[in-house]
Amino acid sequence: MSTDAHGRPGAGSAKSRERPLLSDVPALSHAERARTLLASTSTGTLCTLAREPAGFPYGSLVTFGLAEGEPVFLVSELAEHTRNLREDGRASLLVAESRAGDPLALGRVTLLGQCAPATEGQVESARDAYLARHPGAAQYAGFSDFSFWRLAVSAVRYIGGYGRMSWIELDAWRSALPDPIAPEAAAILAHMNEDHADALPLYCRAFSPLNDILQVCMTGIDRLGFEMSVTTPSGTQTLRLPFSAPIADKTDARKALVALLKEARARLGVSPS
Amino acid sequence: MSTDAHGRPGAGSAKSRERPLLSDVPALSHAERARTLLASTSTGTLCTLAREPAGFPYGSLVTFGLAEGEPVFLVSELAEHTRNLREDGRASLLVAESRAGDPLALGRVTLLGQCAPATEGQVESARDAYLARHPGAAQYAGFSDFSFWRLAVSAVRYIGGYGRMSWIELDAWRSALPDPIAPEAAAILAHMNEDHADALPLYCRAFSPLNDILQVCMTGIDRLGFEMSVTTPSGTQTLRLPFSAPIADKTDARKALVALLKEARARLGVSPS
Repeated sequence: MSTDAHGRPGAGSAKSRERPLLSDVPALSHAERARTLLASTSTGTLCTLAREPAGFPYGSLVTFGLAEGEPVFLVSELAEHTRNLREDGRASLLVAESRAGDPLALGRVTLLGQCAPATEGQVESARDAYLARHPGAAQYAGFSDFSFWRLAVSAVRYIGGYGRMSWIELDAWRSALPDPIAPEAAAILAHMNEDHADALPLYCRAFSPLNDILQVCMTGIDRLGFEMSVTTPSGTQTLRLPFSAPIADKTDARKALVALLKEARARLGVSPS
Repeated sequence: MSTDAHGRPGAGSAKSRERPLLSDVPALSHAERARTLLASTSTGTLCTLAREPAGFPYGSLVTFGLAEGEPVFLVSELAEHTRNLREDGRASLLVAESRAGDPLALGRVTLLGQCAPATEGQVESARDAYLARHPGAAQYAGFSDFSFWRLAVSAVRYIGGYGRMSWIELDAWRSALPDPIAPEAAAILAHMNEDHADALPLYCRAFSPLNDILQVCMTGIDRLGFEMSVTTPSGTQTLRLPFSAPIADKTDARKALVALLKEARARLGVSPS
Protein backbone atom coordinates (compact mmCIF):
# COMPACT_ATOMS: atom_id res chain seq x y z
CA MET A 1 0.00 0.00 0.00
CA SER A 2 2.70 2.46 0.89
CA THR A 3 6.40 2.35 0.55
CA ASP A 4 9.33 4.07 2.07
CA ALA A 5 11.97 1.73 0.75
CA HIS A 6 14.32 4.19 -0.87
CA GLY A 7 17.98 3.30 -1.08
CA ARG A 8 19.04 5.90 1.40
CA PRO A 9 22.66 6.22 2.42
CA GLY A 10 22.35 6.56 6.19
CA ALA A 11 19.29 7.21 8.28
CA GLY A 12 17.16 10.28 8.81
CA SER A 13 15.25 12.44 6.37
CA ALA A 14 12.27 14.73 6.24
CA LYS A 15 10.17 11.58 5.97
CA SER A 16 10.77 10.55 9.54
CA ARG A 17 8.13 13.12 10.45
CA GLU A 18 5.60 11.13 8.49
CA ARG A 19 5.77 8.11 10.74
CA PRO A 20 2.82 7.99 13.11
CA LEU A 21 3.69 8.27 16.77
CA LEU A 22 0.77 6.08 17.83
CA SER A 23 -0.12 3.09 15.75
CA ASP A 24 -3.63 2.03 14.81
CA VAL A 25 -5.17 5.49 15.12
CA PRO A 26 -8.14 5.51 12.71
CA ALA A 27 -7.49 7.74 9.70
CA LEU A 28 -9.23 8.54 6.45
CA SER A 29 -8.76 5.88 3.80
CA HIS A 30 -6.92 6.81 0.63
CA ALA A 31 -10.26 6.63 -1.19
CA GLU A 32 -11.73 9.17 1.22
CA ARG A 33 -8.68 11.42 0.92
CA ALA A 34 -8.86 11.30 -2.86
CA ARG A 35 -12.59 12.07 -2.86
CA THR A 36 -11.99 14.94 -0.44
CA LEU A 37 -9.34 16.38 -2.72
CA LEU A 38 -11.62 16.14 -5.75
CA ALA A 39 -14.41 17.83 -3.84
CA SER A 40 -12.30 20.91 -3.17
CA THR A 41 -10.35 21.22 -6.44
CA SER A 42 -11.88 21.83 -9.86
CA THR A 43 -8.86 22.26 -12.12
CA GLY A 44 -6.54 19.49 -13.24
CA THR A 45 -4.46 18.07 -16.05
CA LEU A 46 -6.22 15.96 -18.66
CA CYS A 47 -3.84 13.48 -20.27
CA THR A 48 -4.75 12.23 -23.72
CA LEU A 49 -2.88 10.54 -26.57
CA ALA A 50 -1.55 13.01 -29.13
CA ARG A 51 -2.28 12.58 -32.82
CA GLU A 52 1.02 14.25 -33.71
CA PRO A 53 3.61 13.28 -32.49
CA ALA A 54 1.52 10.10 -32.61
CA GLY A 55 0.88 8.26 -29.38
CA PHE A 56 2.70 10.70 -27.13
CA PRO A 57 0.88 11.40 -23.88
CA TYR A 58 -0.39 14.98 -24.05
CA GLY A 59 -1.18 17.05 -20.97
CA SER A 60 -3.61 19.96 -21.05
CA LEU A 61 -5.24 22.13 -18.43
CA VAL A 62 -8.95 21.50 -17.83
CA THR A 63 -11.68 22.44 -15.42
CA PHE A 64 -13.98 19.67 -14.31
CA GLY A 65 -16.98 18.69 -12.23
CA LEU A 66 -17.69 15.36 -10.57
CA ALA A 67 -20.79 13.29 -11.36
CA GLU A 68 -21.20 10.05 -9.43
CA GLY A 69 -17.48 9.94 -8.76
CA GLU A 70 -16.53 10.49 -12.39
CA PRO A 71 -14.99 13.66 -13.85
CA VAL A 72 -17.08 15.61 -16.34
CA PHE A 73 -15.75 18.25 -18.71
CA LEU A 74 -17.10 20.91 -21.04
CA VAL A 75 -14.78 20.84 -24.02
CA SER A 76 -14.51 22.50 -27.41
CA GLU A 77 -14.11 20.43 -30.57
CA LEU A 78 -11.26 22.81 -31.44
CA ALA A 79 -9.19 21.84 -28.40
CA GLU A 80 -6.26 19.49 -28.86
CA HIS A 81 -7.49 17.17 -26.12
CA THR A 82 -10.90 16.82 -27.74
CA ARG A 83 -9.36 16.02 -31.11
CA ASN A 84 -7.10 13.51 -29.38
CA LEU A 85 -10.03 11.89 -27.58
CA ARG A 86 -12.00 11.65 -30.84
CA GLU A 87 -9.16 9.41 -32.11
CA ASP A 88 -8.50 7.48 -28.89
CA GLY A 89 -10.57 7.80 -25.73
CA ARG A 90 -7.90 6.62 -23.30
CA ALA A 91 -7.28 9.37 -20.78
CA SER A 92 -6.42 10.30 -17.25
CA LEU A 93 -7.04 13.29 -15.02
CA LEU A 94 -4.47 14.42 -12.47
CA VAL A 95 -5.76 16.60 -9.68
CA ALA A 96 -3.30 18.03 -7.18
CA GLU A 97 -3.77 19.84 -3.92
CA SER A 98 -2.65 23.45 -4.23
CA ARG A 99 -1.32 24.85 -1.01
CA ALA A 100 1.87 26.57 -0.03
CA GLY A 101 4.85 24.40 0.76
CA ASP A 102 6.65 21.48 -0.88
CA PRO A 103 4.30 20.36 -3.69
CA LEU A 104 5.54 16.77 -3.44
CA ALA A 105 4.36 16.63 0.17
CA LEU A 106 0.78 17.43 -0.86
CA GLY A 107 -2.00 15.13 -2.06
CA ARG A 108 -2.80 14.27 -5.65
CA VAL A 109 -4.90 11.71 -7.45
CA THR A 110 -4.86 10.32 -10.98
CA LEU A 111 -8.09 8.93 -12.42
CA LEU A 112 -7.64 6.73 -15.48
CA GLY A 113 -10.32 5.60 -17.89
CA GLN A 114 -12.04 6.01 -21.20
CA CYS A 115 -13.25 9.54 -21.84
CA ALA A 116 -16.22 10.00 -24.15
CA PRO A 117 -19.08 12.40 -24.82
CA ALA A 118 -21.72 12.12 -22.12
CA THR A 119 -24.43 9.75 -23.23
CA GLU A 120 -28.03 10.87 -23.46
CA GLY A 121 -28.57 9.45 -20.00
CA GLN A 122 -25.48 11.20 -18.58
CA VAL A 123 -25.64 14.62 -20.14
CA GLU A 124 -27.97 16.22 -17.61
CA SER A 125 -25.96 15.11 -14.58
CA ALA A 126 -22.76 16.10 -16.39
CA ARG A 127 -24.10 19.58 -17.10
CA ASP A 128 -25.38 20.00 -13.54
CA ALA A 129 -22.15 18.75 -11.98
CA TYR A 130 -19.94 20.87 -14.22
CA LEU A 131 -21.91 24.10 -14.01
CA ALA A 132 -22.31 23.77 -10.24
CA ARG A 133 -18.55 24.28 -10.02
CA HIS A 134 -18.11 26.56 -13.04
CA PRO A 135 -21.23 28.71 -13.32
CA GLY A 136 -19.37 31.20 -15.52
CA ALA A 137 -19.04 28.55 -18.21
CA ALA A 138 -22.78 28.44 -18.80
CA GLN A 139 -22.33 30.71 -21.83
CA TYR A 140 -20.19 28.06 -23.54
CA ALA A 141 -22.58 25.21 -22.84
CA GLY A 142 -24.83 26.55 -25.60
CA PHE A 143 -22.12 26.80 -28.26
CA SER A 144 -22.47 24.20 -30.99
CA ASP A 145 -18.83 23.12 -30.79
CA PHE A 146 -18.85 22.61 -27.02
CA SER A 147 -20.09 19.46 -25.36
CA PHE A 148 -19.99 17.58 -22.08
CA TRP A 149 -17.65 14.62 -21.77
CA ARG A 150 -17.24 12.10 -18.99
CA LEU A 151 -14.30 10.00 -17.88
CA ALA A 152 -15.37 6.44 -16.98
CA VAL A 153 -12.97 5.77 -14.12
CA SER A 154 -11.30 2.37 -14.33
CA ALA A 155 -8.23 2.92 -12.13
CA VAL A 156 -7.35 5.39 -9.37
CA ARG A 157 -3.88 6.25 -8.10
CA TYR A 158 -3.58 8.26 -4.89
CA ILE A 159 -0.44 9.91 -3.53
CA GLY A 160 -0.78 11.66 -0.21
CA GLY A 161 2.79 12.91 0.02
CA TYR A 162 6.14 11.21 0.52
CA GLY A 163 5.72 7.47 1.04
CA ARG A 164 1.93 7.55 1.28
CA MET A 165 0.46 6.13 -1.91
CA SER A 166 -1.68 3.35 -3.32
CA TRP A 167 -3.86 2.18 -6.17
CA ILE A 168 -7.39 2.56 -4.82
CA GLU A 169 -9.83 -0.30 -5.31
CA LEU A 170 -12.64 0.80 -7.62
CA ASP A 171 -15.35 -0.27 -5.20
CA ALA A 172 -13.71 1.77 -2.46
CA TRP A 173 -13.45 4.75 -4.81
CA ARG A 174 -17.11 4.53 -5.80
CA SER A 175 -18.41 4.21 -2.27
CA ALA A 176 -16.11 6.76 -0.64
CA LEU A 177 -17.42 10.19 0.36
CA PRO A 178 -15.49 13.41 0.81
CA ASP A 179 -14.62 14.13 4.41
CA PRO A 180 -17.47 16.32 5.75
CA ILE A 181 -15.07 18.27 7.97
CA ALA A 182 -12.78 19.37 5.12
CA PRO A 183 -14.65 22.59 4.27
CA GLU A 184 -14.49 23.64 7.95
CA ALA A 185 -11.00 22.37 8.71
CA ALA A 186 -9.04 25.58 8.08
CA ALA A 187 -11.36 27.57 10.35
CA ILE A 188 -11.25 24.97 13.11
CA LEU A 189 -7.44 24.80 12.99
CA ALA A 190 -7.13 28.59 13.11
CA HIS A 191 -9.54 28.75 16.06
CA MET A 192 -7.75 26.05 18.01
CA ASN A 193 -4.28 27.44 17.35
CA GLU A 194 -5.26 31.02 18.11
CA ASP A 195 -7.77 30.68 20.92
CA HIS A 196 -7.06 27.30 22.54
CA ALA A 197 -3.31 26.90 22.21
CA ASP A 198 -3.17 25.97 25.92
CA ALA A 199 -5.24 22.84 25.28
CA LEU A 200 -2.84 21.33 22.75
CA PRO A 201 0.02 20.37 25.12
CA LEU A 202 -2.57 18.75 27.40
CA TYR A 203 -3.80 16.54 24.53
CA CYS A 204 -0.19 15.52 23.84
CA ARG A 205 0.71 14.76 27.44
CA ALA A 206 -2.51 12.90 28.26
CA PHE A 207 -2.81 10.76 25.14
CA SER A 208 0.75 10.15 23.96
CA PRO A 209 4.17 9.44 25.44
CA LEU A 210 5.23 13.01 24.60
CA ASN A 211 5.87 15.08 27.68
CA ASP A 212 8.28 17.97 27.37
CA ILE A 213 6.34 19.95 24.76
CA LEU A 214 8.29 22.91 23.41
CA GLN A 215 5.85 23.83 20.66
CA VAL A 216 2.64 22.39 19.30
CA CYS A 217 0.32 23.34 16.48
CA MET A 218 -2.86 21.66 15.25
CA THR A 219 -2.25 20.83 11.59
CA GLY A 220 -5.20 18.72 10.51
CA ILE A 221 -8.69 17.57 11.42
CA ASP A 222 -11.09 15.17 9.76
CA ARG A 223 -14.10 13.13 10.73
CA LEU A 224 -12.00 10.50 12.54
CA GLY A 225 -9.45 12.54 14.46
CA PHE A 226 -6.99 15.40 14.46
CA GLU A 227 -3.27 15.93 14.00
CA MET A 228 -0.70 18.09 15.71
CA SER A 229 2.87 18.95 14.87
CA VAL A 230 4.69 18.57 18.19
CA THR A 231 8.20 19.75 18.97
CA THR A 232 10.03 18.22 21.94
CA PRO A 233 13.73 18.31 22.81
CA SER A 234 14.16 15.24 20.58
CA GLY A 235 12.62 16.82 17.46
CA THR A 236 9.34 17.50 15.70
CA GLN A 237 6.74 14.78 15.18
CA THR A 238 3.23 14.44 13.91
CA LEU A 239 0.80 13.20 16.52
CA ARG A 240 -2.61 11.97 15.43
CA LEU A 241 -5.36 11.45 18.02
CA PRO A 242 -8.71 9.77 17.32
CA PHE A 243 -12.18 10.97 18.22
CA SER A 244 -14.24 8.49 20.22
CA ALA A 245 -16.76 8.47 17.36
CA PRO A 246 -16.74 9.96 13.86
CA ILE A 247 -17.82 13.60 13.73
CA ALA A 248 -20.00 15.14 11.03
CA ASP A 249 -19.67 18.88 11.35
CA LYS A 250 -18.17 21.86 13.18
CA THR A 251 -20.51 21.46 16.13
CA ASP A 252 -19.46 17.84 16.55
CA ALA A 253 -15.83 18.90 16.27
CA ARG A 254 -16.18 21.38 19.11
CA LYS A 255 -17.95 18.84 21.32
CA ALA A 256 -15.35 16.17 20.60
CA LEU A 257 -12.42 18.49 21.25
CA VAL A 258 -13.98 19.75 24.50
CA ALA A 259 -14.68 16.18 25.66
CA LEU A 260 -11.09 15.16 24.92
CA LEU A 261 -9.79 18.19 26.80
CA LYS A 262 -11.90 17.30 29.81
CA GLU A 263 -10.58 13.76 29.73
CA ALA A 264 -7.00 15.00 29.31
CA ARG A 265 -7.32 17.27 32.35
CA ALA A 266 -8.76 14.43 34.41
CA ARG A 267 -5.94 12.08 33.40
CA LEU A 268 -3.29 14.69 34.15
CA GLY A 269 -4.93 15.92 37.35
CA VAL A 270 -5.12 19.44 35.92
CA SER A 271 -8.06 21.52 37.08
CA PRO A 272 -10.02 23.45 34.46
CA SER A 273 -8.74 27.01 34.15
CA MET B 1 -1.73 30.30 -35.14
CA SER B 2 -4.66 31.31 -33.04
CA THR B 3 -8.29 30.72 -33.40
CA ASP B 4 -11.45 32.21 -32.13
CA ALA B 5 -13.79 30.38 -34.45
CA HIS B 6 -16.19 28.91 -31.94
CA GLY B 7 -19.70 28.22 -33.04
CA ARG B 8 -21.18 30.95 -30.97
CA PRO B 9 -24.88 31.66 -31.10
CA GLY B 10 -24.82 35.45 -31.40
CA ALA B 11 -22.00 37.86 -30.86
CA GLY B 12 -20.20 38.98 -27.74
CA SER B 13 -18.40 37.07 -25.04
CA ALA B 14 -15.68 37.51 -22.48
CA LYS B 15 -13.25 37.01 -25.32
CA SER B 16 -14.02 40.34 -26.93
CA ARG B 17 -11.74 41.85 -24.30
CA GLU B 18 -8.87 39.88 -25.76
CA ARG B 19 -8.93 41.70 -29.06
CA PRO B 20 -6.20 44.32 -29.26
CA LEU B 21 -7.38 47.90 -29.54
CA LEU B 22 -4.36 48.93 -31.62
CA SER B 23 -3.05 46.56 -34.22
CA ASP B 24 0.61 45.78 -34.83
CA VAL B 25 1.79 46.67 -31.33
CA PRO B 26 4.90 44.55 -30.74
CA ALA B 27 4.27 41.80 -28.18
CA LEU B 28 6.17 38.84 -26.79
CA SER B 29 6.13 35.83 -29.10
CA HIS B 30 4.48 32.66 -27.89
CA ALA B 31 7.95 31.14 -27.56
CA GLU B 32 9.00 33.97 -25.26
CA ARG B 33 5.80 33.71 -23.24
CA ALA B 34 6.27 29.97 -22.83
CA ARG B 35 9.91 30.39 -21.78
CA THR B 36 8.87 33.09 -19.33
CA LEU B 37 6.27 30.80 -17.80
CA LEU B 38 8.80 27.97 -17.45
CA ALA B 39 11.28 30.32 -15.82
CA SER B 40 8.86 31.19 -13.04
CA THR B 41 7.16 27.83 -12.43
CA SER B 42 8.88 24.66 -11.24
CA THR B 43 6.02 22.22 -10.75
CA GLY B 44 4.05 20.55 -13.52
CA THR B 45 2.32 17.42 -14.71
CA LEU B 46 4.45 14.72 -16.29
CA CYS B 47 2.43 12.60 -18.71
CA THR B 48 3.70 9.12 -19.41
CA LEU B 49 2.21 5.92 -20.84
CA ALA B 50 0.88 3.59 -18.15
CA ARG B 51 1.92 -0.04 -18.02
CA GLU B 52 -1.44 -1.01 -16.53
CA PRO B 53 -4.00 -0.17 -17.81
CA ALA B 54 -1.64 -0.50 -20.79
CA GLY B 55 -1.10 2.51 -23.00
CA PHE B 56 -3.30 4.89 -21.02
CA PRO B 57 -1.79 8.35 -20.63
CA TYR B 58 -0.84 8.75 -16.98
CA GLY B 59 -0.48 12.15 -15.29
CA SER B 60 1.68 12.65 -12.22
CA LEU B 61 2.92 15.66 -10.31
CA VAL B 62 6.60 16.49 -10.73
CA THR B 63 9.04 19.22 -9.92
CA PHE B 64 11.50 20.16 -12.62
CA GLY B 65 14.39 22.37 -13.65
CA LEU B 66 15.27 23.63 -17.10
CA ALA B 67 18.59 22.86 -18.80
CA GLU B 68 19.14 24.39 -22.24
CA GLY B 69 15.39 24.71 -22.73
CA GLU B 70 14.68 21.11 -21.75
CA PRO B 71 12.99 19.94 -18.55
CA VAL B 72 15.09 17.90 -16.13
CA PHE B 73 13.72 15.79 -13.30
CA LEU B 74 15.00 13.95 -10.26
CA VAL B 75 12.94 10.78 -10.10
CA SER B 76 12.78 7.62 -8.02
CA GLU B 77 12.81 4.21 -9.66
CA LEU B 78 9.83 3.41 -7.42
CA ALA B 79 7.63 6.11 -8.96
CA GLU B 80 4.96 5.09 -11.45
CA HIS B 81 6.17 7.62 -14.01
CA THR B 82 9.73 6.26 -13.87
CA ARG B 83 8.51 2.69 -14.32
CA ASN B 84 6.37 3.88 -17.21
CA LEU B 85 9.29 5.71 -18.83
CA ARG B 86 11.50 2.63 -18.48
CA GLU B 87 8.98 0.86 -20.72
CA ASP B 88 8.25 3.73 -23.12
CA GLY B 89 10.05 7.08 -23.07
CA ARG B 90 7.29 9.08 -24.77
CA ALA B 91 6.24 11.88 -22.43
CA SER B 92 5.02 15.41 -22.07
CA LEU B 93 5.22 18.04 -19.36
CA LEU B 94 2.38 20.48 -18.78
CA VAL B 95 3.25 23.64 -16.91
CA ALA B 96 0.48 26.07 -16.03
CA GLU B 97 0.53 29.56 -14.65
CA SER B 98 -0.87 29.63 -11.14
CA ARG B 99 -2.55 32.88 -10.28
CA ALA B 100 -5.94 33.79 -8.96
CA GLY B 101 -8.77 34.03 -11.46
CA ASP B 102 -10.17 31.88 -14.26
CA PRO B 103 -7.53 29.15 -14.78
CA LEU B 104 -8.47 28.82 -18.46
CA ALA B 105 -7.56 32.48 -19.01
CA LEU B 106 -4.01 31.88 -17.79
CA GLY B 107 -0.96 30.65 -19.68
CA ARG B 108 0.21 27.05 -19.98
CA VAL B 109 2.64 25.15 -22.11
CA THR B 110 3.00 21.46 -23.02
CA LEU B 111 6.45 20.15 -23.94
CA LEU B 112 6.43 16.79 -25.73
CA GLY B 113 9.37 14.51 -26.32
CA GLN B 114 11.31 11.43 -25.35
CA CYS B 115 12.24 11.35 -21.66
CA ALA B 116 15.34 9.40 -20.67
CA PRO B 117 18.01 9.28 -17.99
CA ALA B 118 20.45 12.14 -18.43
CA THR B 119 23.45 10.97 -20.42
CA GLU B 120 26.91 11.22 -18.99
CA GLY B 121 27.33 14.51 -20.84
CA GLN B 122 23.99 15.86 -19.53
CA VAL B 123 23.97 14.77 -15.92
CA GLU B 124 25.95 17.68 -14.52
CA SER B 125 23.81 20.36 -16.18
CA ALA B 126 20.69 18.41 -15.20
CA ARG B 127 21.76 18.27 -11.57
CA ASP B 128 22.73 21.95 -11.53
CA ALA B 129 19.51 23.06 -13.22
CA TYR B 130 17.30 20.92 -11.00
CA LEU B 131 18.96 21.71 -7.68
CA ALA B 132 19.09 25.43 -8.50
CA ARG B 133 15.30 25.39 -8.29
CA HIS B 134 14.90 22.66 -5.67
CA PRO B 135 17.82 22.93 -3.28
CA GLY B 136 15.93 20.91 -0.65
CA ALA B 137 16.04 17.88 -2.95
CA ALA B 138 19.83 17.63 -2.70
CA GLN B 139 19.39 14.89 -0.07
CA TYR B 140 17.63 12.67 -2.63
CA ALA B 141 20.22 13.20 -5.34
CA GLY B 142 22.54 10.84 -3.48
CA PHE B 143 20.02 8.00 -3.08
CA SER B 144 20.82 5.01 -5.25
CA ASP B 145 17.27 4.73 -6.61
CA PHE B 146 17.04 8.41 -7.64
CA SER B 147 18.44 9.74 -10.88
CA PHE B 148 18.24 12.74 -13.17
CA TRP B 149 16.16 12.47 -16.32
CA ARG B 150 15.76 14.86 -19.21
CA LEU B 151 12.94 15.42 -21.67
CA ALA B 152 14.25 15.95 -25.22
CA VAL B 153 11.69 18.48 -26.45
CA SER B 154 10.36 17.68 -29.92
CA ALA B 155 7.09 19.68 -29.90
CA VAL B 156 5.78 22.64 -27.90
CA ARG B 157 2.18 23.70 -27.49
CA TYR B 158 1.45 27.10 -25.97
CA ILE B 159 -1.92 28.38 -24.76
CA GLY B 160 -1.99 31.93 -23.46
CA GLY B 161 -5.66 32.00 -22.54
CA TYR B 162 -8.88 31.98 -24.55
CA GLY B 163 -8.17 32.04 -28.27
CA ARG B 164 -4.41 32.63 -27.93
CA MET B 165 -2.59 29.43 -28.78
CA SER B 166 -0.13 27.86 -31.17
CA TRP B 167 2.37 25.09 -31.76
CA ILE B 168 5.73 26.77 -31.32
CA GLU B 169 8.47 26.14 -33.89
CA LEU B 170 11.32 24.24 -32.27
CA ASP B 171 13.93 26.72 -33.43
CA ALA B 172 11.90 29.56 -31.93
CA TRP B 173 11.57 27.59 -28.69
CA ARG B 174 15.30 26.91 -28.47
CA SER B 175 16.35 30.48 -29.17
CA ALA B 176 13.70 32.22 -27.04
CA LEU B 177 14.62 33.76 -23.71
CA PRO B 178 12.38 34.45 -20.73
CA ASP B 179 11.17 38.03 -20.57
CA PRO B 180 13.70 39.87 -18.37
CA ILE B 181 10.98 42.12 -16.93
CA ALA B 182 8.81 39.25 -15.63
CA PRO B 183 10.46 38.99 -12.19
CA GLU B 184 9.91 42.74 -11.66
CA ALA B 185 6.51 43.02 -13.32
CA ALA B 186 4.33 42.67 -10.22
CA ALA B 187 6.28 45.36 -8.37
CA ILE B 188 6.19 47.73 -11.34
CA LEU B 189 2.44 47.27 -11.79
CA ALA B 190 1.78 47.85 -8.10
CA HIS B 191 3.94 50.99 -8.13
CA MET B 192 2.25 52.42 -11.22
CA ASN B 193 -1.27 51.66 -10.05
CA GLU B 194 -0.69 52.95 -6.53
CA ASP B 195 1.63 55.91 -7.05
CA HIS B 196 1.12 56.99 -10.67
CA ALA B 197 -2.54 56.30 -11.32
CA ASP B 198 -2.87 59.84 -12.75
CA ALA B 199 -0.47 58.96 -15.60
CA LEU B 200 -2.52 56.07 -16.94
CA PRO B 201 -5.45 58.05 -18.44
CA LEU B 202 -2.89 60.32 -20.14
CA TYR B 203 -1.27 57.31 -21.84
CA CYS B 204 -4.70 56.19 -23.04
CA ARG B 205 -5.79 59.57 -24.35
CA ALA B 206 -2.46 60.40 -26.03
CA PHE B 207 -1.75 57.06 -27.69
CA SER B 208 -5.15 55.52 -28.42
CA PRO B 209 -8.58 56.61 -29.61
CA LEU B 210 -9.91 56.16 -26.06
CA ASN B 211 -10.96 59.41 -24.48
CA ASP B 212 -13.61 59.28 -21.80
CA ILE B 213 -11.65 57.12 -19.33
CA LEU B 214 -13.77 56.02 -16.38
CA GLN B 215 -11.23 53.62 -14.90
CA VAL B 216 -7.82 52.37 -15.87
CA CYS B 217 -5.39 49.89 -14.34
CA MET B 218 -2.00 48.72 -15.58
CA THR B 219 -2.25 44.94 -15.95
CA GLY B 220 0.96 43.85 -17.63
CA ILE B 221 4.45 44.89 -18.61
CA ASP B 222 7.17 43.14 -20.58
CA ARG B 223 10.29 44.10 -22.46
CA LEU B 224 8.30 45.35 -25.48
CA GLY B 225 5.44 47.31 -23.94
CA PHE B 226 2.75 47.47 -21.31
CA GLU B 227 -0.96 46.78 -21.02
CA MET B 228 -3.83 48.52 -19.33
CA SER B 229 -7.40 47.51 -18.65
CA VAL B 230 -9.41 50.59 -19.65
CA THR B 231 -13.06 51.22 -18.88
CA THR B 232 -14.96 53.81 -20.95
CA PRO B 233 -18.71 54.35 -21.28
CA SER B 234 -18.68 51.73 -24.05
CA GLY B 235 -17.07 48.98 -21.93
CA THR B 236 -13.76 47.59 -20.75
CA GLN B 237 -10.90 46.94 -23.14
CA THR B 238 -7.28 45.93 -23.01
CA LEU B 239 -4.93 48.56 -24.41
CA ARG B 240 -1.36 47.61 -25.18
CA LEU B 241 1.22 50.33 -25.83
CA PRO B 242 4.76 49.73 -27.13
CA PHE B 243 8.03 51.04 -25.79
CA SER B 244 10.16 52.88 -28.37
CA ALA B 245 12.86 50.25 -27.78
CA PRO B 246 12.96 46.99 -25.82
CA ILE B 247 13.70 47.44 -22.13
CA ALA B 248 15.92 45.15 -20.08
CA ASP B 249 15.25 45.92 -16.42
CA LYS B 250 13.35 47.99 -13.87
CA THR B 251 15.49 51.07 -14.48
CA ASP B 252 14.74 50.91 -18.20
CA ALA B 253 11.08 50.47 -17.41
CA ARG B 254 10.98 53.63 -15.31
CA LYS B 255 12.79 55.62 -17.98
CA ALA B 256 10.53 54.35 -20.74
CA LEU B 257 7.35 55.04 -18.76
CA VAL B 258 8.55 58.54 -17.83
CA ALA B 259 9.49 59.28 -21.45
CA LEU B 260 6.08 58.11 -22.66
CA LEU B 261 4.37 60.25 -20.04
CA LYS B 262 6.33 63.30 -21.15
CA GLU B 263 5.35 62.64 -24.74
CA ALA B 264 1.72 62.09 -23.75
CA ARG B 265 1.61 65.42 -21.90
CA ALA B 266 3.14 67.21 -24.88
CA ARG B 267 0.63 65.67 -27.29
CA LEU B 268 -2.29 66.52 -25.02
CA GLY B 269 -1.00 69.98 -24.11
CA VAL B 270 -1.04 69.05 -20.43
CA SER B 271 1.62 70.72 -18.28
CA PRO B 272 3.53 68.51 -15.86
CA SER B 273 1.99 68.60 -12.41
